[in-house]
Amino acid sequence: MRFDRPFEQYVQGETFKTRGRTVTEADIVHFAGVSGDFFPLHVDERYAQTTRFGERIAHGMLTLSLATGLYVLSPDYVIAFYGLDRVRFLKPVLIGDTLHLEGEVIDLKDRGEAGLVSVRQQIMCGEEVVVTAVIHMLVKKGHASDRL
Amino acid sequence: MRFDRPFEQYVQGETFKTRGRTVTEADIVHFAGVSGDFFPLHVDERYAQTTRFGERIAHGMLTLSLATGLYVLSPDYVIAFYGLDRVRFLKPVLIGDTLHLEGEVIDLKDRGEAGLVSVRQQIMCGEEVVVTAVIHMLVKKGHASDRL
Amino acid sequence: MRFDRPFEQYVQGETFKTRGRTVTEADIVHFAGVSGDFFPLHVDERYAQTTRFGERIAHGMLTLSLATGLYVLSPDYVIAFYGLDRVRFLKPVLIGDTLHLEGEVIDLKDRGEAGLVSVRQQIMCGEEVVVTAVIHMLVKKGHASDRL
Amino acid sequence: MRFDRPFEQYVQGETFKTRGRTVTEADIVHFAGVSGDFFPLHVDERYAQTTRFGERIAHGMLTLSLATGLYVLSPDYVIAFYGLDRVRFLKPVLIGDTLHLEGEVIDLKDRGEAGLVSVRQQIMCGEEVVVTAVIHMLVKKGHASDRL
Amino acid sequence: MRFDRPFEQYVQGETFKTRGRTVTEADIVHFAGVSGDFFPLHVDERYAQTTRFGERIAHGMLTLSLATGLYVLSPDYVIAFYGLDRVRFLKPVLIGDTLHLEGEVIDLKDRGEAGLVSVRQQIMCGEEVVVTAVIHMLVKKGHASDRL
Amino acid sequence: MRFDRPFEQYVQGETFKTRGRTVTEADIVHFAGVSGDFFPLHVDERYAQTTRFGERIAHGMLTLSLATGLYVLSPDYVIAFYGLDRVRFLKPVLIGDTLHLEGEVIDLKDRGEAGLVSVRQQIMCGEEVVVTAVIHMLVKKGHASDRL
Repeated sequence: MRFDRPFEQYVQGETFKTRGRTVTEADIVHFAGVSGDFFPLHVDERYAQTTRFGERIAHGMLTLSLATGLYVLSPDYVIAFYGLDRVRFLKPVLIGDTLHLEGEVIDLKDRGEAGLVSVRQQIMCGEEVVVTAVIHMLVKKGHASDRL
Repeated sequence: MRFDRPFEQYVQGETFKTRGRTVTEADIVHFAGVSGDFFPLHVDERYAQTTRFGERIAHGMLTLSLATGLYVLSPDYVIAFYGLDRVRFLKPVLIGDTLHLEGEVIDLKDRGEAGLVSVRQQIMCGEEVVVTAVIHMLVKKGHASDRL
Repeated sequence: MRFDRPFEQYVQGETFKTRGRTVTEADIVHFAGVSGDFFPLHVDERYAQTTRFGERIAHGMLTLSLATGLYVLSPDYVIAFYGLDRVRFLKPVLIGDTLHLEGEVIDLKDRGEAGLVSVRQQIMCGEEVVVTAVIHMLVKKGHASDRL
Repeated sequence: MRFDRPFEQYVQGETFKTRGRTVTEADIVHFAGVSGDFFPLHVDERYAQTTRFGERIAHGMLTLSLATGLYVLSPDYVIAFYGLDRVRFLKPVLIGDTLHLEGEVIDLKDRGEAGLVSVRQQIMCGEEVVVTAVIHMLVKKGHASDRL
Repeated sequence: MRFDRPFEQYVQGETFKTRGRTVTEADIVHFAGVSGDFFPLHVDERYAQTTRFGERIAHGMLTLSLATGLYVLSPDYVIAFYGLDRVRFLKPVLIGDTLHLEGEVIDLKDRGEAGLVSVRQQIMCGEEVVVTAVIHMLVKKGHASDRL
Repeated sequence: MRFDRPFEQYVQGETFKTRGRTVTEADIVHFAGVSGDFFPLHVDERYAQTTRFGERIAHGMLTLSLATGLYVLSPDYVIAFYGLDRVRFLKPVLIGDTLHLEGEVIDLKDRGEAGLVSVRQQIMCGEEVVVTAVIHMLVKKGHASDRL
């Protein structure tokens, strides 16, 4: 999804598909370090083997964070990340999985000088949906400054 | 909040307050690196000064990720992070802000051999709410294995 | 080991076992970067293959550092890390090894308003001791502030 | 190569070979995070498999950056890194490749109180040249302060 | 600069200016860790104060690496980073400097099914040029696959 | 201290002083992430202000880890890090402190084909000793392979 245009140029129902990113063991190790979440399901292979997952899995918040990096966010139009709704971690994300996003613009709300673009986002591992969420982005209206 | 007991031991309306963590410039730099989100509001001081925020701010997802590290999650009882609802980024988080969590158990759903504990979470900077969210944690029932 | 109580509540001879953490290649790469120790045994696979170890091994100080992260340290009771004695790196720690701690309280010294708790710590890889050390923790006495 | 002596002690034609360093997946993940270069050839395994390279490769700038860490730079003699010329990325560097440097002093330029030492540097993976470059280092002349 | 089109669509003399990025102390610490270059001018404030620079400065290779992250590289058109020429580190980059790129396409070379786009790149700190370089990018010709 | 020679060439009583390294906020944030030690004295400025230290301090193990990066360890002579004794954290290390090592060889033990070099190490912040320790390094005897 490209947030690279003013609010007036989004269309309800428009769909998108992004490029991908592979989740590595290093990403999980980093994310534990950044978040402080060392839950053993993410950092203790021996423990993870005793769980229903059978191996270490990515933090749900890591998956959600990597997803934000797959959007194209133009500083000429994006004001702020407004919020999320109905985030559900449906399937475990394993080391080596390559994720991409698919989704659809589901709502557009006029907020005066800006607008709220709401997107139903599916984080995909190949053909499989691993996380669903609705994200809301606050976007400028009208003619923005010259693009860099 | 301490997820350190079986499902039967949570009570609707119980409240909590966690210890804190200071958001540093290094955290923002790390999170940009982990997520791939180099939106200039987070990594370009000169740009940030031209925005309504006036300086670089933390990524919303960083704030949310740090919050997960402030919970106590016992592997004897926590099965998985189930999801989030109604996440709203209310105020910008600045470099040097010290955050903690306050919240309340708002819902308990029996799911057979496990239960879903839903918590209304407020990410606080001192007395000010900066992010609100509802999080859902899947927790074991009954007698768990001996605690490490 | 849980340093989550005042000095008076530790008992000489009490034993403990912690949860675990898997040492990854990423941890070794990180630790080289944080410490500045790029000794080729840790970062040069080709060199490591010519040594008695046959492959890259974790830095001794990385193993010791990961161990400190496996303790539960309550800010209500822990004042400071006082020191270490008799640290011996007995066996190499390899990429993929999952470590945990086992140990025993071996000494308790009253220091007026605080006390020194000394623990014999064994860093274990499964059934095997890889590092031994004695660590000393300075702990508050009496009634601490309410726990978060 | 050891930049551990004053300008007068380098000889045109002197050759060198350094110790090595293994390029890990974690290094690529880190470098993407530090540089902000998430080009999918480096972080998207699925995409990389569709390219002429067939798998993820290290960033050219990562390879070049690791090379600078293989020089011995004495602060008693090195003033600054002056520049590079004719950098060519000849072969892809893959996860697990162990790199070292080989090279030759090709030029010495007197600059008054300092001198410019120019080195033709080959980044090697075993017997194979993967990157070539000429680097220029500004080095003190005469008697430096006592070495630490 | 946007490498987001086939070789035929670049024009000799076209100029560009990118968005910016602030160089933080954390970036220098990271880069030391990734590259293994702990030269005291970058990591020893006390030493740095005794030099002509008077304070710690960014590694030249860090500055050059950050610059690569400021290009827009479309995987539909970019094949590989081909090389660099005439890299000169003209001014020290200090903690807190915000850098951006300005430049010009200076050469276009047909290479059969691909083309080489050569760009004179100036890394700017405000109005001041801190690094100059020529970079060469290998770019596809003709009609690429659908853009993500 | 330079471990760059065979066992026979160390002399009891020889002293040394190393170059320095500045402890940054980013180092503390990194070390929390690598070790998993998020004790609030290191990562919660508000909490740290209520303690005897008055501000965030570096982890003792971080200080000790940085120290190992200040030794020169030649792979031609160093076999392994053998152990530590009598590590005492005497003074808090604060953000911005520049540390270096001073010390003395205090013991030499012949171990057949190798030898144990024991060094009393003082981690210094300017003129002040912040950590003391004895470290033991296992070093080759006789003629080593050609130096890289």
